[in-house]
Amino acid sequence: MSNAASEAASSAIRELVDANHILFDQGVVDGFGHVSVRHPERSDRFLLSRSMAPALVTEADILEFDLDGNAVVPNGPAGYLERFIHGEIYRKRGDVMAVVHSHSPSVVPFSVVTGTKLRPICHMCGFLSGKGAPIFEIRDFAGPGSDLLITSGKLGAALADSLGEGPAVLMRGHGSTVVGTTLRQAVFRAVYTEIGARLQMEAMRLGPVTYLSEEETIGTTKTISTQYDRSWFLWLKAARNSAMSR
Amino acid sequence: MSNAASEAASSAIRELVDANHILFDQGVVDGFGHVSVRHPERSDRFLLSRSMAPALVTEADILEFDLDGNAVVPNGPAGYLERFIHGEIYRKRGDVMAVVHSHSPSVVPFSVVTGTKLRPICHMCGFLSGKGAPIFEIRDFAGPGSDLLITSGKLGAALADSLGEGPAVLMRGHGSTVVGTTLRQAVFRAVYTEIGARLQMEAMRLGPVTYLSEEETIGTTKTISTQYDRSWFLWLKAARNSAMSR
Amino acid sequence: MSNAASEAASSAIRELVDANHILFDQGVVDGFGHVSVRHPERSDRFLLSRSMAPALVTEADILEFDLDGNAVVPNGPAGYLERFIHGEIYRKRGDVMAVVHSHSPSVVPFSVVTGTKLRPICHMCGFLSGKGAPIFEIRDFAGPGSDLLITSGKLGAALADSLGEGPAVLMRGHGSTVVGTTLRQAVFRAVYTEIGARLQMEAMRLGPVTYLSEEETIGTTKTISTQYDRSWFLWLKAARNSAMSR
Amino acid sequence: MSNAASEAASSAIRELVDANHILFDQGVVDGFGHVSVRHPERSDRFLLSRSMAPALVTEADILEFDLDGNAVVPNGPAGYLERFIHGEIYRKRGDVMAVVHSHSPSVVPFSVVTGTKLRPICHMCGFLSGKGAPIFEIRDFAGPGSDLLITSGKLGAALADSLGEGPAVLMRGHGSTVVGTTLRQAVFRAVYTEIGARLQMEAMRLGPVTYLSEEETIGTTKTISTQYDRSWFLWLKAARNSAMSR
Repeated sequence: MSNAASEAASSAIRELVDANHILFDQGVVDGFGHVSVRHPERSDRFLLSRSMAPALVTEADILEFDLDGNAVVPNGPAGYLERFIHGEIYRKRGDVMAVVHSHSPSVVPFSVVTGTKLRPICHMCGFLSGKGAPIFEIRDFAGPGSDLLITSGKLGAALADSLGEGPAVLMRGHGSTVVGTTLRQAVFRAVYTEIGARLQMEAMRLGPVTYLSEEETIGTTKTISTQYDRSWFLWLKAARNSAMSR
Repeated sequence: MSNAASEAASSAIRELVDANHILFDQGVVDGFGHVSVRHPERSDRFLLSRSMAPALVTEADILEFDLDGNAVVPNGPAGYLERFIHGEIYRKRGDVMAVVHSHSPSVVPFSVVTGTKLRPICHMCGFLSGKGAPIFEIRDFAGPGSDLLITSGKLGAALADSLGEGPAVLMRGHGSTVVGTTLRQAVFRAVYTEIGARLQMEAMRLGPVTYLSEEETIGTTKTISTQYDRSWFLWLKAARNSAMSR
Repeated sequence: MSNAASEAASSAIRELVDANHILFDQGVVDGFGHVSVRHPERSDRFLLSRSMAPALVTEADILEFDLDGNAVVPNGPAGYLERFIHGEIYRKRGDVMAVVHSHSPSVVPFSVVTGTKLRPICHMCGFLSGKGAPIFEIRDFAGPGSDLLITSGKLGAALADSLGEGPAVLMRGHGSTVVGTTLRQAVFRAVYTEIGARLQMEAMRLGPVTYLSEEETIGTTKTISTQYDRSWFLWLKAARNSAMSR
Repeated sequence: MSNAASEAASSAIRELVDANHILFDQGVVDGFGHVSVRHPERSDRFLLSRSMAPALVTEADILEFDLDGNAVVPNGPAGYLERFIHGEIYRKRGDVMAVVHSHSPSVVPFSVVTGTKLRPICHMCGFLSGKGAPIFEIRDFAGPGSDLLITSGKLGAALADSLGEGPAVLMRGHGSTVVGTTLRQAVFRAVYTEIGARLQMEAMRLGPVTYLSEEETIGTTKTISTQYDRSWFLWLKAARNSAMSR
């Protein structure tokens, strides 16, 4: 970031650093995965760490990108190979203010099976569509021998199309991408997508599952959307008190 | 609480704070879930934290409520949306002195399946009825498009009816509520409901399961009821030594 | 213990305290479960903590019992309800120098199913009999409505009969008891019985399993029996560095 | 090591100590398992700890061996019983610079079942062959009653044959061995073999699985091979900040 970062941008950067640490501490990201926030003053830009493990990100590591995935300050450190996920979703979805991409372990299995969709199993996961999360099959866009990564604007746009108007898209053999209208909502959804996937796997082994109805996904999402800060400040304390913060 | 809290009330508050921290440290609650205790001197009131993550609760956060879920001291901080769970159970069940509501992860799967009941699989879980824990289907009381939460006295009363005379009731797509004649018993039961659910899921995948007989649930409950303090003080030390207490 | 404890007894007590802490840190015991060692100088006595959570045991908590389960020093603190497990096994099995009783979570499921036995799935678990661990059904000895606990010498003797000449016996709806010719062997076996049970559950879900042959259980046990200290000192450091030791 | 260890050897030893600690902290090894690196200046030698738990290894514990598994400095501390795994793989595979042998818990189940192979399920595991990891059946080489361990050059050579040109070989009822062209690659592969095995077990329970195609394993491996340091330095910080490092 330039030295002239506004107060709004500085505040966004600080919260983005916290989000990186929370997502690691909650088991959503490991050495890989990334989280971005749209620039608070320029809707055609977003903030994202340079290419590194989220747990280790500091304010100095946050870069500013345009929607094509170009760093605003040239000749800086390398960005994530998959920064196009973020730019293309911000381009297509004016409502989205934050994006989390991860390989969270309970979600990957749902990305590689047919006939079983990730669905909203409890009120905390009501934001997941009752019809099941879409799965992005990269073979349809990058051919049969890709590296499965979203390494171009073209692939990012295809992923954004697959996401549609929803909160989450699974990526076959790879992971998932979750969005929010605020950073805290996106982080909340990323954590509870992982939790919900785990619950669904366990429930399916017990017998036929009653998922939330479409109406219930609306009701629960409305109520739970008032509660993000309760988790945010808990997770923030947990991340700051963790061994990784020593 | 008013400054004039009696010694009995102060003692109950301190133990309730410990219970909040224990339930988080043992994985029963995360940012959500709550635990209450009936007021030691006024059976028509109960003590419960303001709306916040249990791990962060301090004595100053404990509020006093009447059984309708109204805070005794007006214009205070917001209470939990679902405080009606507590009030209505205390109203209906004179024997109950403490209530734990949670989304503990091994129990939720049992709330969404039909044909498989949560049952007592070992002596530590003997308090679970041999007939299987009842499941509260909120659609029967709040219609097909609710937010699944117990946000009124009417819904709280329906949940209390579903609980009946038992120790636990599952809530479809939501979680569970466990009660006790003491706070330590309720906490013990909440932890071992989660443990028992996990054991049952694993056992069912191995083959046909022999559950405790009705007679055995009585025998084990009687003996184990003398042992709560052994777990309580272990869990208390674990919570106090945890990273969250730094 | 009396002040006149010999050096051998004092050394045994110190190691027994370590064993308590290790078994908790490795997830074999929680608030419940217990470990004993035969008295190094009197084969008709054994050392066992007073009734308390293993993680919190100190040298001052270790009591001396005769094989009938009577404390040698009268009017002391209460012993475990199930101390008869230890006394009766020491009586029947002259080769046994240490006993671990636990409810370790991956083993309990094997205690409640028929048709699936806990078997040696890898070289670290070679000590488990190729024929599968026996299951003690307490209904056969205490009737249909017991508390499932080994609360008398008669039940302890029946459990010891069920154990036979083996290293481990499962107890239906309860847990397991593992023995060793040294304390370190018994602790090692208790940890790896839990690990082996977990591995077997996972493997059985993948397809038909090749277990160790009877010959392989002999070969692996002979070799691994030279390696206990490698785990012991690792686990000891882990226990001492854990949050519970602060 | 002799006092005259070159700078290159000293550097390799320091990194090897880090690798030991990382593999423990990431759950790949427990008290058992070992990791080696080929000597940086003598391709006919390798560096490996004396026989001890990896978490406790220090620079002073690293020994130098020839490819027959003989310690270069005689009369030193005992080496691992299975050091022949390392020597024979280095002999057969000139491209291999590091070897990890472990009993990582999600991989062992795949070693004991027939009809289900460990396969590349996501881009992070693309290095696993699309045909499935080979399984080494020691009965074919050591007869029906062995201790399952690779305790001779002959068995090590047979294991190396089974590994072939691949990155990993499973060992029935025992564990796995993973190799790399650098130490960081071998450690990365060992961690992600464990993660991939866990993901595959979960996915198989959900429905038919789409694995990476052969072409995709090539594409993903090429890209991910540029990213090892991102995980390495994260894991190194985690290991150094862990309770075991106090």
